[in-house]
Amino acid sequence: MNFASDNAGPAHPAVWAAMAEADRGVAAPYGADPLTQEVVGRLQELFGVPDAAVALVSVGTAANALALACLCPPWGRTLCPDVAHVEWDECGAPEAFIGGGKLVLVPSRGGKITPDDLRAAIAAAPHGVHYGKLAAVTISNLSEMGRAWTPDEVGALAEVAHGAGLALHMDGARFSNGVAAVGCSAAEMFAAGLDALCFGGTKNGLPGVEAVILRDGGLQEELEFRRKRAGHLVSKHRYLAAQVTAYLDDDLWLANARAANAAAARLAEGLRAAGVEITEQVDGNQIFARMPRRLHAELMAAGASYYLWPDAPVDGDPGEMLGCRMVCNWATEDAEIDALLGAVATVRAA
Amino acid sequence: MNFASDNAGPAHPAVWAAMAEADRGVAAPYGADPLTQEVVGRLQELFGVPDAAVALVSVGTAANALALACLCPPWGRTLCPDVAHVEWDECGAPEAFIGGGKLVLVPSRGGKITPDDLRAAIAAAPHGVHYGKLAAVTISNLSEMGRAWTPDEVGALAEVAHGAGLALHMDGARFSNGVAAVGCSAAEMFAAGLDALCFGGTKNGLPGVEAVILRDGGLQEELEFRRKRAGHLVSKHRYLAAQVTAYLDDDLWLANARAANAAAARLAEGLRAAGVEITEQVDGNQIFARMPRRLHAELMAAGASYYLWPDAPVDGDPGEMLGCRMVCNWATEDAEIDALLGAVATVRAA
Amino acid sequence: MNFASDNAGPAHPAVWAAMAEADRGVAAPYGADPLTQEVVGRLQELFGVPDAAVALVSVGTAANALALACLCPPWGRTLCPDVAHVEWDECGAPEAFIGGGKLVLVPSRGGKITPDDLRAAIAAAPHGVHYGKLAAVTISNLSEMGRAWTPDEVGALAEVAHGAGLALHMDGARFSNGVAAVGCSAAEMFAAGLDALCFGGTKNGLPGVEAVILRDGGLQEELEFRRKRAGHLVSKHRYLAAQVTAYLDDDLWLANARAANAAAARLAEGLRAAGVEITEQVDGNQIFARMPRRLHAELMAAGASYYLWPDAPVDGDPGEMLGCRMVCNWATEDAEIDALLGAVATVRAA
Amino acid sequence: MNFASDNAGPAHPAVWAAMAEADRGVAAPYGADPLTQEVVGRLQELFGVPDAAVALVSVGTAANALALACLCPPWGRTLCPDVAHVEWDECGAPEAFIGGGKLVLVPSRGGKITPDDLRAAIAAAPHGVHYGKLAAVTISNLSEMGRAWTPDEVGALAEVAHGAGLALHMDGARFSNGVAAVGCSAAEMFAAGLDALCFGGTKNGLPGVEAVILRDGGLQEELEFRRKRAGHLVSKHRYLAAQVTAYLDDDLWLANARAANAAAARLAEGLRAAGVEITEQVDGNQIFARMPRRLHAELMAAGASYYLWPDAPVDGDPGEMLGCRMVCNWATEDAEIDALLGAVATVRAA
Repeated sequence: MNFASDNAGPAHPAVWAAMAEADRGVAAPYGADPLTQEVVGRLQELFGVPDAAVALVSVGTAANALALACLCPPWGRTLCPDVAHVEWDECGAPEAFIGGGKLVLVPSRGGKITPDDLRAAIAAAPHGVHYGKLAAVTISNLSEMGRAWTPDEVGALAEVAHGAGLALHMDGARFSNGVAAVGCSAAEMFAAGLDALCFGGTKNGLPGVEAVILRDGGLQEELEFRRKRAGHLVSKHRYLAAQVTAYLDDDLWLANARAANAAAARLAEGLRAAGVEITEQVDGNQIFARMPRRLHAELMAAGASYYLWPDAPVDGDPGEMLGCRMVCNWATEDAEIDALLGAVATVRAA
Repeated sequence: MNFASDNAGPAHPAVWAAMAEADRGVAAPYGADPLTQEVVGRLQELFGVPDAAVALVSVGTAANALALACLCPPWGRTLCPDVAHVEWDECGAPEAFIGGGKLVLVPSRGGKITPDDLRAAIAAAPHGVHYGKLAAVTISNLSEMGRAWTPDEVGALAEVAHGAGLALHMDGARFSNGVAAVGCSAAEMFAAGLDALCFGGTKNGLPGVEAVILRDGGLQEELEFRRKRAGHLVSKHRYLAAQVTAYLDDDLWLANARAANAAAARLAEGLRAAGVEITEQVDGNQIFARMPRRLHAELMAAGASYYLWPDAPVDGDPGEMLGCRMVCNWATEDAEIDALLGAVATVRAA
Repeated sequence: MNFASDNAGPAHPAVWAAMAEADRGVAAPYGADPLTQEVVGRLQELFGVPDAAVALVSVGTAANALALACLCPPWGRTLCPDVAHVEWDECGAPEAFIGGGKLVLVPSRGGKITPDDLRAAIAAAPHGVHYGKLAAVTISNLSEMGRAWTPDEVGALAEVAHGAGLALHMDGARFSNGVAAVGCSAAEMFAAGLDALCFGGTKNGLPGVEAVILRDGGLQEELEFRRKRAGHLVSKHRYLAAQVTAYLDDDLWLANARAANAAAARLAEGLRAAGVEITEQVDGNQIFARMPRRLHAELMAAGASYYLWPDAPVDGDPGEMLGCRMVCNWATEDAEIDALLGAVATVRAA
Repeated sequence: MNFASDNAGPAHPAVWAAMAEADRGVAAPYGADPLTQEVVGRLQELFGVPDAAVALVSVGTAANALALACLCPPWGRTLCPDVAHVEWDECGAPEAFIGGGKLVLVPSRGGKITPDDLRAAIAAAPHGVHYGKLAAVTISNLSEMGRAWTPDEVGALAEVAHGAGLALHMDGARFSNGVAAVGCSAAEMFAAGLDALCFGGTKNGLPGVEAVILRDGGLQEELEFRRKRAGHLVSKHRYLAAQVTAYLDDDLWLANARAANAAAARLAEGLRAAGVEITEQVDGNQIFARMPRRLHAELMAAGASYYLWPDAPVDGDPGEMLGCRMVCNWATEDAEIDALLGAVATVRAA
């Protein structure tokens, strides 16, 4: 009954097989191996950007920070939703990679910002040397509140961003879940107006790979220098490439995301049926709900694992309503979901 | 006949088995899993520093840069051999992680610096605010020229460094080969005077893990914050831990290093027998040799892969003597060595 | 009728005399001159901190950024009022000097944050490596909205900050005006709980000097190294020291501030009498008011200079009420005030 | 008898007069005043670069670091003479401003590097992501050893630099002395091949101003953002501008330099006549000499002030020959020179 994070899930067997396959004999390090060259081309094709700059790294924090550093000068500011992962969960990595940049929080609903909110934030930013310069916008898909972006929504936001000279970056740690939710293709999402995408694999069945994709292929050299000096140029690069191979073969990335989304839908439906309040629309594999502290305590005692959201002490008024986040992954089994729902039912009945 | 880099070698089967074992079910991300806790303790034990700060990362550049950033303030200078990897091959990563620090090159022989050379370099550094402040010394073991350090040598260097208030860091990308060469234990090497060690796995049969070990356990928090904001806190951390598990079980780290060293000894002996000049003492798994360009060209045409060292054009005077570096790894087979030696013999005979 | 900024005012004649005096003959550069040594001691005495670390710089942005860099590690976060100068007007300098740190905005009233607001902000900050670490609080005195801090208010805020392990920094660009307003001594204000103060001179009659004062004298070396590598160690340092000499002699700093505050009080009273809405309590030398756009336009046409606050277009609905900021300096003359008030009266009467 | 540094000299009276003139009434801060606009135009005219980006700062370290940061990306390397001020005396400021860049030392004679030496250094730099990328060359005029550059020499060096895609920067802390020495115009020197010049005033009779001049006017915005976030945008900017006004009026910059150079020539001639070895050709206002420690000790006891170069203990073998540096400034009087020469004569005669 682990619903704490999709990072807690295992890797898909097909990935291990691909890594074992890649492990045969010697291979040039640092991305000079043929497999890496191949997957770069496949990624460009998947996203419909044959000239894009592409780099693989093993951690999502690095992917986002590198992409933003390529879009935003040290004196720049990047606009983000007020709940953004880059603000709350990356320990200042984007600012560090940028060389001292700043994030500006924009009010959000469901973790998404509207074109009007973005327009207002841009209008509110002073001009001139004292303030610095707005340079980019970053959004997450899925958003931090589990919501998926449609290409139309992205396009409308991109129009405002581009109109003000700002680049649009998408933190796609759960890109696959988002695309699976809205039913568009990866290329449609990119074409809607992205300048940079971090295409996540780690939360979706890979041991650890994220791809940075920049629309402007002229940034390839800068991206590679930045990656190296950040210590993110993996020497045995074939193991990163092999993960991507398996991920793209037979659209495993999409299949895994659909499985995780379906599990979340099933869980959400069961919770609702049991009278639990679901507080955000469930688009992908994340569920946000509210229950009395007593119920949380009983579920955790029964072995369930998930985060109170926002964080709260487990001790306290048993009747207080507390929010929580539950996340399913590609390998979440019906049995786990049933076990959680059973525990809910048991407690409710008691 | 690939002798280009130990990074080009495959991973050891035992490591894949350990990763598969770790892959079962869910595990807390970001190093909160039990396996990570376990390997931290095992590393502290191996190096005889039960209170040391420890962190795993997946790239050696990051390991060195993080360790130095913990030892050297932004206005500090770190002394290193004039052939040091941190100067030539890390794209300024140490300086970037430190926040703008500087490296100072010390003359070296075989990639090693003597206590006298270090003493002279320290004496030559001006005092005061204009120059900055000497803060650390970094050496590589194996050195960049393939030489192993003995604990006595390290102790003598540490005495000079510590006497001047400088910390001593060892880039141990090939630490295992170095220890195997001199026959000391890992703990003896650390006890000789190290303040920080990057214990390498990637070049010695692991897909990608390096351990940062800092003598001062009080630096654990700083090390973890620095790792996170550098994008080097791996989410599915159990896969790093599993690699270390396999590495430590049955001293695989030592067995792999011994195999690589033995292969290099065999190759060096063969080259010498064939009249090739070996230009550095072969302590570990790296061989530095000199041959006429013609011979290099023939070997490469025959399928051999290795670096000209220093880099040189393949076209040119066929009789010119050119240096080269050949590296063996844990999986280098006798057949490959024999093939290379055979090619040398063939060309020589022609 | 220039009320745009106290930075627009001239320097006090006594300061030029002191600089001319200091200009005789040679003097050791970089702060090794006797005058610098003397003023450091006088500053320590004025603030009642004989062991404090002290450094002079010529720009306020640098003073604040250096002080915060000494209090906050690169992975740290500094809490500030949501209208803070460090957030809006320093182009990311604090973040750059810190090496990639972050500011966290706390709701403010009159530019001041209450102990309760600070407590709430601290409670809302997640713990652990993903978020980073709260390290410091910075406030401005006068605040950005012209309000003065009392020692009691500072003490109460410091208690909360220190209780959470955070250092308290005061941006004192208008420290003199603030102290003059509440009638306490400089030492009383420091003793109330400051860990760092930037004592401003530039806005109060000096050509350009700010003093950084850190309670912890152990930070002297770090402060000096940081100042040098930021390019802020002035070579002909005697000219900085001479400015401070004049500033401290006969409490010129206080006399200038009182003059500026009195001018602002006179102007505010006149505006109020003319029916203009004063939107913030006038503690020091800054006035925040609201008038119809038509009135602003007429005043500016008549030669008045001040900022619309927040910035707004001069063209538009003539009846729309627009805020503004007017600042008096030590040299503001009654005639200027009368001229402005006369212009207001004229327009009102029309 | 102070020959320690031109930084120890007083400011020229004409400069104080210009500052007093500028001090009348109010003036827009941050460089928006008319005087600043005027001197920017005058500087562009003086150097023959009407479109150049220009910014004033008050410290030479900042000027050089800002200029290099505009020329060199964070992963770039800047080549400099092995005795360069940026390497030895700026506490890592260029590296910090660049965001972690690196300096590469090139062998020099008299502080100057030849086209051949530069060519060799460029050829020796590896290509690719591991090393980083050569981006700029920086030289000092006068050099750190007191030598002046001719336009022809600069042109020959620029040709090599530009041929390799590198920008050429001149640290002109003593630019005026250099130009006075070789008899060219400021514009001829710039036209010889400079991409960036820091035109120094502080060492040549100004209280503290340096002008950064970048050939590529498109860098103006970047230069201004970088200056602001480095804390180097002076608020009461008219005082910087006034210094430049006085400096340019009647070619005071050149007159001051000629005076300093003439003083140095007189001193050098006297020393030579007294049998003192002059170790570097005296082009400008710096003299490098060698004398027995006994003589140094006597001179210092008699009140002379200058640096042993390289630094050496005053105690020790009285007969040991020690190098020294003596610097004259615009205000050095014949009487001081005579006093020093008299002291030399007295000691020699004893």
